[in-house]
Amino acid sequence: MASNFFGELFRITTFGESHGAAIGVVIDGCPAGLSISKEEIDAELKVRQPGKSPYTSPRTEKDEAEILSGVFDGKTTGAPIAIVIWNKDADSSKYEPIKNLLRPGHANFTYLQKYGIFDYRGGGRSSARETAARVAAGAVAKKLLAHYDIEICAFVAEIGGIAINEPNIEAPHKLRKKILANPLFCPDAKATEKMMKAIEKAKDEGDSLGGILQCIAKLPVGLGDPVYGKLEAKLASAMLSLPATKGFEIGSGFAAARMKGSEHNDAFDVDENGQITTVTNYAGGTLGGISTGLPLTFRVAFKPTSSIKKQQDTVDLKGSKKPFKLPEGSRHDPCVAIRAVPILEAMTALVLADALLFNRSAKLG
Amino acid sequence: MASNFFGELFRITTFGESHGAAIGVVIDGCPAGLSISKEEIDAELKVRQPGKSPYTSPRTEKDEAEILSGVFDGKTTGAPIAIVIWNKDADSSKYEPIKNLLRPGHANFTYLQKYGIFDYRGGGRSSARETAARVAAGAVAKKLLAHYDIEICAFVAEIGGIAINEPNIEAPHKLRKKILANPLFCPDAKATEKMMKAIEKAKDEGDSLGGILQCIAKLPVGLGDPVYGKLEAKLASAMLSLPATKGFEIGSGFAAARMKGSEHNDAFDVDENGQITTVTNYAGGTLGGISTGLPLTFRVAFKPTSSIKKQQDTVDLKGSKKPFKLPEGSRHDPCVAIRAVPILEAMTALVLADALLFNRSAKLG
Amino acid sequence: MASNFFGELFRITTFGESHGAAIGVVIDGCPAGLSISKEEIDAELKVRQPGKSPYTSPRTEKDEAEILSGVFDGKTTGAPIAIVIWNKDADSSKYEPIKNLLRPGHANFTYLQKYGIFDYRGGGRSSARETAARVAAGAVAKKLLAHYDIEICAFVAEIGGIAINEPNIEAPHKLRKKILANPLFCPDAKATEKMMKAIEKAKDEGDSLGGILQCIAKLPVGLGDPVYGKLEAKLASAMLSLPATKGFEIGSGFAAARMKGSEHNDAFDVDENGQITTVTNYAGGTLGGISTGLPLTFRVAFKPTSSIKKQQDTVDLKGSKKPFKLPEGSRHDPCVAIRAVPILEAMTALVLADALLFNRSAKLG
Amino acid sequence: MASNFFGELFRITTFGESHGAAIGVVIDGCPAGLSISKEEIDAELKVRQPGKSPYTSPRTEKDEAEILSGVFDGKTTGAPIAIVIWNKDADSSKYEPIKNLLRPGHANFTYLQKYGIFDYRGGGRSSARETAARVAAGAVAKKLLAHYDIEICAFVAEIGGIAINEPNIEAPHKLRKKILANPLFCPDAKATEKMMKAIEKAKDEGDSLGGILQCIAKLPVGLGDPVYGKLEAKLASAMLSLPATKGFEIGSGFAAARMKGSEHNDAFDVDENGQITTVTNYAGGTLGGISTGLPLTFRVAFKPTSSIKKQQDTVDLKGSKKPFKLPEGSRHDPCVAIRAVPILEAMTALVLADALLFNRSAKLG
Repeated sequence: MASNFFGELFRITTFGESHGAAIGVVIDGCPAGLSISKEEIDAELKVRQPGKSPYTSPRTEKDEAEILSGVFDGKTTGAPIAIVIWNKDADSSKYEPIKNLLRPGHANFTYLQKYGIFDYRGGGRSSARETAARVAAGAVAKKLLAHYDIEICAFVAEIGGIAINEPNIEAPHKLRKKILANPLFCPDAKATEKMMKAIEKAKDEGDSLGGILQCIAKLPVGLGDPVYGKLEAKLASAMLSLPATKGFEIGSGFAAARMKGSEHNDAFDVDENGQITTVTNYAGGTLGGISTGLPLTFRVAFKPTSSIKKQQDTVDLKGSKKPFKLPEGSRHDPCVAIRAVPILEAMTALVLADALLFNRSAKLG
Repeated sequence: MASNFFGELFRITTFGESHGAAIGVVIDGCPAGLSISKEEIDAELKVRQPGKSPYTSPRTEKDEAEILSGVFDGKTTGAPIAIVIWNKDADSSKYEPIKNLLRPGHANFTYLQKYGIFDYRGGGRSSARETAARVAAGAVAKKLLAHYDIEICAFVAEIGGIAINEPNIEAPHKLRKKILANPLFCPDAKATEKMMKAIEKAKDEGDSLGGILQCIAKLPVGLGDPVYGKLEAKLASAMLSLPATKGFEIGSGFAAARMKGSEHNDAFDVDENGQITTVTNYAGGTLGGISTGLPLTFRVAFKPTSSIKKQQDTVDLKGSKKPFKLPEGSRHDPCVAIRAVPILEAMTALVLADALLFNRSAKLG
Repeated sequence: MASNFFGELFRITTFGESHGAAIGVVIDGCPAGLSISKEEIDAELKVRQPGKSPYTSPRTEKDEAEILSGVFDGKTTGAPIAIVIWNKDADSSKYEPIKNLLRPGHANFTYLQKYGIFDYRGGGRSSARETAARVAAGAVAKKLLAHYDIEICAFVAEIGGIAINEPNIEAPHKLRKKILANPLFCPDAKATEKMMKAIEKAKDEGDSLGGILQCIAKLPVGLGDPVYGKLEAKLASAMLSLPATKGFEIGSGFAAARMKGSEHNDAFDVDENGQITTVTNYAGGTLGGISTGLPLTFRVAFKPTSSIKKQQDTVDLKGSKKPFKLPEGSRHDPCVAIRAVPILEAMTALVLADALLFNRSAKLG
Repeated sequence: MASNFFGELFRITTFGESHGAAIGVVIDGCPAGLSISKEEIDAELKVRQPGKSPYTSPRTEKDEAEILSGVFDGKTTGAPIAIVIWNKDADSSKYEPIKNLLRPGHANFTYLQKYGIFDYRGGGRSSARETAARVAAGAVAKKLLAHYDIEICAFVAEIGGIAINEPNIEAPHKLRKKILANPLFCPDAKATEKMMKAIEKAKDEGDSLGGILQCIAKLPVGLGDPVYGKLEAKLASAMLSLPATKGFEIGSGFAAARMKGSEHNDAFDVDENGQITTVTNYAGGTLGGISTGLPLTFRVAFKPTSSIKKQQDTVDLKGSKKPFKLPEGSRHDPCVAIRAVPILEAMTALVLADALLFNRSAKLG
């Protein structure tokens, strides 16, 4: 079943395994005339790259985009944009010893059941490495959105139970500068301190932590489509397609379940420019699945990294009980949520780029 | 933009407005040879129907399915199954006085901005009435799933902050019998009492309550597809496409963010029948987006009903401040989550039916 | 498999069997703000209706569209437009005697093999009656195209080997008036005379005739999409999805195979208004799958009607040889090509409406 | 608009320009467990390669597939299969002098109008070079089909007005051996002689020839889907998506327009094995869009190569009349139809692979 594509008008198809020759993406449907360079894509890839701090995986692969098509004289031509990221630092030999063991929290069991075959090297197709391709595509989508003044910023909102004080609402591009300067992509310096300690403790124990990311976006009114094409439905799908995600909530989210209608309804009002707006934004930026023009805001829950140093119980492919121990030298993130920040932004950009193009069909022109 | 369809191989397209002539659905892709009757569809519609208790809307429309095509001699033929549900109890005249006001928590603002036109009668296309068409389609999907021993049961897990004690894990079809006998579709009798009181209080105050639904399903290993076709991604999209939903979580959900890897990883084991299983099920029934064979379990947050009797602040289409008061005689649910129970089941059935057909393409046959 | 829909942004899904309760269509994705009335749709249905002359089937069903949704105050709202056409003159009892026989040239053999079940009444889902739903949808598409000055005209170009002299190139809407006034939808009065005689002769012999239709359209430059979304690829798919079609050719078509490059290449030139154009139009209005702005012109081959009065050889479902004789009172067209004229126009309109919306995504806006 | 993909369950997405870094394809949805090697793909690419005889382009690029993903231990894993073919012999500097001229019969005019930008080097995205990616994907599809005993063979049926005597119906894999041994991929030795002379004459005159290809396939009953998913609709779309194609016909094709129903209807019969079959096969292997189990047979018309040495009239981008002369050293096929033989097979394989997977959803299993 073809399930490696995302989006309809601005569509990406990704390919590649963690320890194969390369991963990559084909972007089909990007409008012509958009300036885009390898450097801009690499800049986004760099945000996602591991090996930059003790809080992420020490795998030191330096991801670089090779643009194979679709860009001519620095501009998109309307033709598909193929981007390849070569796998350089992928030593798959160390996975040999565990290739017949079911990895707790991993997908080799389900892949084997479904396909009868599994590329076990580093998680194969189910590895989070695939998300680098999403980030590359997201860089192009972000560039397209920027042309229409749409901005996105994701950040760490909670790690190991330590929650941030929410940042002042400000333009996402401003907030993003702060985020990128923080080692945990977190807007709250105090919380960052505590989170760092919690991460170090977990690492010391051979364990890992979960977390919650938040994303805000500035976008115009009218994006998103009724019924099954609701903006939050597409965002939810995008977010739950990311490895390690367990939940999605928009605006008030699960807290809405404990509110009353009179509290939750965002009263309509008029702002100083005469624009219709709402006093509060419990909705999180959409009504009926269509953007209101207020900030889009949603949160995504990540489970703690499944790959931990601690020994665990498992069985082998034949069903015999075995202890599970990661191969010596395995490199993993103590908290996957951190490096997911640019990935979340990328998926948001892909959803919004698609919605933007769809919106061109809404009315007689 | 075409956004009124859901699913690929088992695809539904719905149509109709709250106060138009009819709502309906075309099911395209249902395998041939499935026994299905109008009575089976009506039975599902009945679960969703309002007017049965003080805890739901007093609108007394008796929904009945008219099957226009695709069924011959009591069996599906492989041709599209069109089902129409006529709108009978739809008096739209009472919406006249508020047609120029933006309804707090409603979609008329965004529809107007997007389309320049809005069928204001009862919420038009954005009304939850559309979900009756989903329930009709879900009845067919459930019948298909039953042929493969796949069972689904949704229930109320929390209303107005009152949470249930989780029911014993048992076969969904058994649990469902209990649920259907409870006026709030809730498995916990004690919690039900408290919830009923909270609902009555909110009604008295002209207010409404939010809630959380939970859904469990029994299904085989192997459903769901890698990367963008993950089972939880499709479920999340399905759930967030429902009116009034604000969040989705699978398995441990947002609580996973506060767990450690060593706690959260479900250790693999072998059961008494020699089948590979896991000791716990924090995953909620999928790994890598593919079902593990353990119970699928997820939760959906619903905001409090937007339509409340209390007066609210709003503006009219021209931006002048106005008080908002629902028309006399308007009928609304004090807590939309309750009636969403069969709708949640329907959407789950649609996701699983599609995944079931997709799975036929996984391997050489 | 979901295969009863056509188009992506302007998408139709049709349903219904020849002798079921109704046939119909859901149009999903029509832009909001388009004026459309039942009368306009009925006018198109009337062109397709049988029983108007000795040259078409005497079945006298008067098709009328019932619009169930998507139109409010006479305008499209962006919501799906559901149209139902009730089957009134469908006496299926006469199909009883032949229900176990394979009908030469018909689909009951393949449907039975594929689905294990067949609604044999009047051809069921495989009947050309389904095309009435396409015509209804096409009426909406034509209205949309008219807003952008896109015009379509189909006509009979050949019946029973009698070919027309090609009409002067003129605006499709002018040509269409002539066509609609001709009993065979043919622009050549002399050829019409000969065709009528040939049809009468075939009818007398209990036989049927094949034919070729031609379609021209006036459209702007730029419609159609590279590689797999070429305008001619979508048209070819649309045309070969029609019952009884055996071939499609655009511009020079099969004759191109006998030409030289120096003859076939349309030399570029500039017209009196300074617009770039070509001297000839062997291309038929597209280059690289994208419209050139010159008239779109293509032809479609129809086989002779499969249902004929003459006795034929066949076998029954068990494989025993049987004579095949149509039930007394069966009503069929002596030449299906004639009534296919409005259907061809409808399918062309659907292809162009979709291409028009797609084209809104081509460039930065 | 995303238009660079083909197929739904067995889906390809192609990318790349004639003179860019590479062209390639991502195959998404190939079932797991299929043996496939680089060598098998290269063998198909070799059939398409130019430079092998005086009857094709002297461009000597040796195409080789690099498999980047989706194959592990020699077998498909269910993950997307990315294949890259690097462009080696692409000297684009010679296109500089004509970059501002509209090339007769080419797409630079329409691409420029649509996108405002055009990668003019060697035709860019609109070049037939893209078809090498289709051939690579087709090699995988053919391998899948072979597992189910489905065979395909395409051949030259007519060039420059010289038609073949149709070959005896035999197993496609046997016929294919003969075809591959013929310099024009033609089954008729005598016609081949005449065609070669015609081609040489055209080359001497700086001109080109058109042609007709035919394709036959052996396949089981039941492939193809009703109404818009008819096998011939998908084939027609596939064929008209190929550069230089002007027409498609299945079975009797355009000749059907001159036949009577009593001639054209294929009488049902039973063969020596008790299988239901038809005496003739004017239908060309489908009824109602679903395969009958008889040989699938269709024909495709190709225009003469647009790139010819002869000087032609054109205009430049500003609309000034200019003579058009191909750059010295340009290398083109005198008759594109010849090298289209493997491409036609590839597209047929892609259509059938998709239909094969779809058919798994037809019935309750």
